[in-house]
Amino acid sequence: MTTTTDRATGEQLKDQVLDAARRAKRAAAELAQATRSTKDELLHAMADALVKRGPEILAANERDVANGRESGMPEGLIDRLSLSTERIEAMADGLRTVAGLPDPVGEVVRGNVLPNGLQLQQVRVPLGVVGIVYEGRPNVTVDAAGLTLKAGNAVLLRGSSSAENSNTALVEILSDVVVEHGLPADSVQLLPCHDRASVQHLITARGLVDVVIPRGGAGLISAVVQNATVPAIETGVGNCHVYVDASADIDTALRILLNSKARRPSVCNAAETFLVHEDIAAEFLPRALAELHGAGVTVHGDERVVAVGGSNVVAATDEDWDAEFLSLDIAAAVVDSLPAAVEHIREHGSGHTEAIVTSDVRAARQFTAQVDAAAVMVNASTAFTDGGEFGMGAEIGISTQKLHARGPMGLPELTSTKWLAFGDGHVRPGSAPANQSSC
Amino acid sequence: MTTTTDRATGEQLKDQVLDAARRAKRAAAELAQATRSTKDELLHAMADALVKRGPEILAANERDVANGRESGMPEGLIDRLSLSTERIEAMADGLRTVAGLPDPVGEVVRGNVLPNGLQLQQVRVPLGVVGIVYEGRPNVTVDAAGLTLKAGNAVLLRGSSSAENSNTALVEILSDVVVEHGLPADSVQLLPCHDRASVQHLITARGLVDVVIPRGGAGLISAVVQNATVPAIETGVGNCHVYVDASADIDTALRILLNSKARRPSVCNAAETFLVHEDIAAEFLPRALAELHGAGVTVHGDERVVAVGGSNVVAATDEDWDAEFLSLDIAAAVVDSLPAAVEHIREHGSGHTEAIVTSDVRAARQFTAQVDAAAVMVNASTAFTDGGEFGMGAEIGISTQKLHARGPMGLPELTSTKWLAFGDGHVRPGSAPANQSSC
Repeated sequence: MTTTTDRATGEQLKDQVLDAARRAKRAAAELAQATRSTKDELLHAMADALVKRGPEILAANERDVANGRESGMPEGLIDRLSLSTERIEAMADGLRTVAGLPDPVGEVVRGNVLPNGLQLQQVRVPLGVVGIVYEGRPNVTVDAAGLTLKAGNAVLLRGSSSAENSNTALVEILSDVVVEHGLPADSVQLLPCHDRASVQHLITARGLVDVVIPRGGAGLISAVVQNATVPAIETGVGNCHVYVDASADIDTALRILLNSKARRPSVCNAAETFLVHEDIAAEFLPRALAELHGAGVTVHGDERVVAVGGSNVVAATDEDWDAEFLSLDIAAAVVDSLPAAVEHIREHGSGHTEAIVTSDVRAARQFTAQVDAAAVMVNASTAFTDGGEFGMGAEIGISTQKLHARGPMGLPELTSTKWLAFGDGHVRPGSAPANQSSC
Repeated sequence: MTTTTDRATGEQLKDQVLDAARRAKRAAAELAQATRSTKDELLHAMADALVKRGPEILAANERDVANGRESGMPEGLIDRLSLSTERIEAMADGLRTVAGLPDPVGEVVRGNVLPNGLQLQQVRVPLGVVGIVYEGRPNVTVDAAGLTLKAGNAVLLRGSSSAENSNTALVEILSDVVVEHGLPADSVQLLPCHDRASVQHLITARGLVDVVIPRGGAGLISAVVQNATVPAIETGVGNCHVYVDASADIDTALRILLNSKARRPSVCNAAETFLVHEDIAAEFLPRALAELHGAGVTVHGDERVVAVGGSNVVAATDEDWDAEFLSLDIAAAVVDSLPAAVEHIREHGSGHTEAIVTSDVRAARQFTAQVDAAAVMVNASTAFTDGGEFGMGAEIGISTQKLHARGPMGLPELTSTKWLAFGDGHVRPGSAPANQSSC
């Protein structure tokens, strides 16, 4: 396990990170061969160890919380940082859940026999070395390790310096169990977390790191995705919309709007803007604004929304349409038509989750066909975009990019595939015309 | 259609490229809604137009060939650049073939009903705007346009300046047909090809270009993949191996080796190294070296191979083990065991295609389990790694990366997916504990 509280020199830090990546790559070659039984036993043993050694974890966490308080960390972040017996139990339960999930490694995705008799199979294989760059919450350390290991990968964890002691204790416990089970000691490693440069070294470790997944705020995600030269998966910024169509059932629309905004306003699948078809606005808006007021939500409205009035209504700025408030705020506009709603979403949406409330079949079909996002809901809350809700059993993050994975990412998304071809001495005839190679 | 022979200023060039990308994005939103019937009619009409307007294409091509000769272009490249009535017919046939393939757009990849009754579906959607950066051969212009359009995407083509006239004529003809069929004029666009900066602007057009696919030599691939800030798919460098195991049937091994190396030595799936288990080396090597000699292949051998001797055998340098010769050259070594062969491939392979020749079940299982590459062959030539051979019907390139696509890429690989959820006013209960969000 690699971690350091020494402030290493620039070159030393780079060496540390690349060395950890090399060791992770060797560990990954072995982990790729591990059977599901082995991995599941490991996950259960990890869960038990976390609970048994809870006191060590809590002691380390107390040091982080004390450091946080001393440096003036806001209570909200202190809460995200803090562990408890219950939260440790939840981490352990998360590992046990992952153990119960099907192993994606080795799954035959497709296969067939070619005209010449060559038997072809496309099978799932681990990605190899997965890097996770994350902020704040120590349970990500355990959740990410469990998911990546179950999918046969080695993991490099680069957490927040504010959780250094907690993460160090967690990784030490997990690694002890890994070694006890005869698996490579470098399967789970913690990277230095004090210098931003360690992130840069991780995300540019081409040939060593197979994918890097950022988990955190827009700033972290953007920094990783823009600077990575290894494959990166863009997660989570959610400027999600709820569009209330002309034919919407008003009670349904109100329920969905409130749930989408106010259930968990700080998560990426929370609605940040709602659009109302002008034909239903007179009936819908007063009730919507009142209910949002009751939930403590400030509405940033366009002229037609502001005109309806309300003490929780302010005029929207241009930036509000692109804003991911992550708070009890929501932008609101009246639109002339469904195409106008689609156009607004195309202009301002972040490709996360977009919902329509409607009774009209054609409207539902048009909206689902024309809105391009990771998830499109018809008569359902945006809050459902979640790996657990989708039945994946666990989730490493929610991708908003289009390649490799889109939407909630579960175990299969932590794998790649390879083709296997079985022949009896098959060779390819002749020599095709020079212009038909695709290389 | 955008192209220019003017040497635009730096800023003008950037504006041109980004403007083309914006127009492609608008075109893509429309193309995403096109039915298969519409797209197939378009492809057939394009095929017919290419043949009918063949003389225009050939005249433009003659200008490129003349320019090439004048600037001292080697005959091999002149050949790759040259078009003929037959080659135009082949391009047209390629489009007709694509028209006959299933439309990936709209395919329901998976779906189920959640415990709460919410109906979930994951459907295929176009990626959106696809950028192709390619060298040399004008038929890539047509092949790439056909595949990307069939998968519902708009395409930005950045070809080689040596094929400028040919590509301009081709794109003009394709675009005329697009417009005649009522589809967006900007569905297929050619980008300026004289200034390397146009590539840079294309591959950094975040928010406009959804993926960029390089088609060409290692230098071009590397430049694109390393500098792109939009998603890029790493194609084709093939340092492919053939491993002749102790239990291999010698005649089979010879056939596979010769076919893997000499059938088409300049393509990415050609074998560049062969490894021989020491237990079979004495029997296999003399015959292998002789047959390779007969095919005009120079063998760059390790000490044990050189010791066998032969006028076509030279001592291998360290670099030879990583070399993609793309010529009638092959590196060769004797290995002590199957694990040693696997280790060598892990060290030097480029993740393209690796083959084992063996009669032993365990050896086959171990090799296919432990070698991680886009394609692993058992008793079959490396030359089979090809979209056409794999039954995909057509191929945009062969990916050697692990995310999104790996191995030959057909129509489905030019798509993304989105989740659709259908409810009846479903909302998500309660408010989960603060530490269980994945955002």
